[in-house]
Amino acid sequence: MSSYPPTLLRLIKQFAKLPGIGEKTATRLALHILNISSQGAASLAQNILDVKEKIKLCSVCFGLADTELCNICADPGRNNGVLCVVEEADDLMALEKSGVFKGRYHVLHGALSPLNGIGPDDLKIKQLVDRIRKNGIKEVILANNTDVEGEATASYLAKLLSSLPVRVTRIASGIPIGCDIKYTDQVTLKRAMEGRRGI
Amino acid sequence: MSSYPPTLLRLIKQFAKLPGIGEKTATRLALHILNISSQGAASLAQNILDVKEKIKLCSVCFGLADTELCNICADPGRNNGVLCVVEEADDLMALEKSGVFKGRYHVLHGALSPLNGIGPDDLKIKQLVDRIRKNGIKEVILANNTDVEGEATASYLAKLLSSLPVRVTRIASGIPIGCDIKYTDQVTLKRAMEGRRGI
Repeated sequence: MSSYPPTLLRLIKQFAKLPGIGEKTATRLALHILNISSQGAASLAQNILDVKEKIKLCSVCFGLADTELCNICADPGRNNGVLCVVEEADDLMALEKSGVFKGRYHVLHGALSPLNGIGPDDLKIKQLVDRIRKNGIKEVILANNTDVEGEATASYLAKLLSSLPVRVTRIASGIPIGCDIKYTDQVTLKRAMEGRRGI
Repeated sequence: MSSYPPTLLRLIKQFAKLPGIGEKTATRLALHILNISSQGAASLAQNILDVKEKIKLCSVCFGLADTELCNICADPGRNNGVLCVVEEADDLMALEKSGVFKGRYHVLHGALSPLNGIGPDDLKIKQLVDRIRKNGIKEVILANNTDVEGEATASYLAKLLSSLPVRVTRIASGIPIGCDIKYTDQVTLKRAMEGRRGI
């Protein structure tokens, strides 16, 4: 490593800090930057700055936006009666890609995790309750992750929202499509059996 | 994808252009940039610009440098009598990491490839011959890659340099360390047998 010029070495070290990028990939990326046009490099650098500067949280759903409202909250064609609660903005994007949901979203920005000191006040839970109260929401779909924190957060929300005149549902757990029953873990199998439906 | 704010989408697309980075990793990186400090993002952007602006080719060996001479050419402690010829700057770095070579380097910046229109004049071959003539080099080690182009380039150089008063050697081909003979390809095995040495 010490043979690389210091300027290049700095970029390699910075790339290596990115998630999923090791020293070898970081070196490859830095050498690639050397080979692209100055214009391309300037554009990449500018976009990194732009993202930090311009991307804010949507004032309604707390998803990512570069305007006051995100694309989804600004879309008049969506169903105002159904609210899908997710942990992070990329969960929202994954659901959007599936194209299955046409209502509104609410991004909590995390999950309850007492061990890490994350309580209800650290998430957008108060704002969720306000939205449900004010906007005549008929159904709240809890699409929290199915890990321990996500499940605990969903249970907490279900209890919290039970006093409101709104139907609260949890996204289904079960065997993912394309999977072998024999390779599926026991907890998932238990959930899949419990959640069985008539066909 | 269309649900991401345009600013973020631009950065995702730019990351996805980097080698070995697909759309999912690009998204992960862009979201990571959102979460790091503004200072960290500014520093990354600045380093990308710095690399494009400051990294030049060393005026002697054509390796990467941010000064007139690269670290290796500027090091007075290295053996001036031996020159190791490599295709690219990262080949040089790989050899440096192994710590086995203490001479000087010469980076060709590619390999002969008539099909792609790359001839001797497109590589730093003239400069190599000049260096050997002027600097009293005693041995030239051809560490070109062992693919078709690299082998052809090494053969070309061996012939070209045969008229000069210098020993020309080729880095050894054979079975990599840690490999099974049974999984080694036939050409490598042939080379390994031809290159056998007394122990």
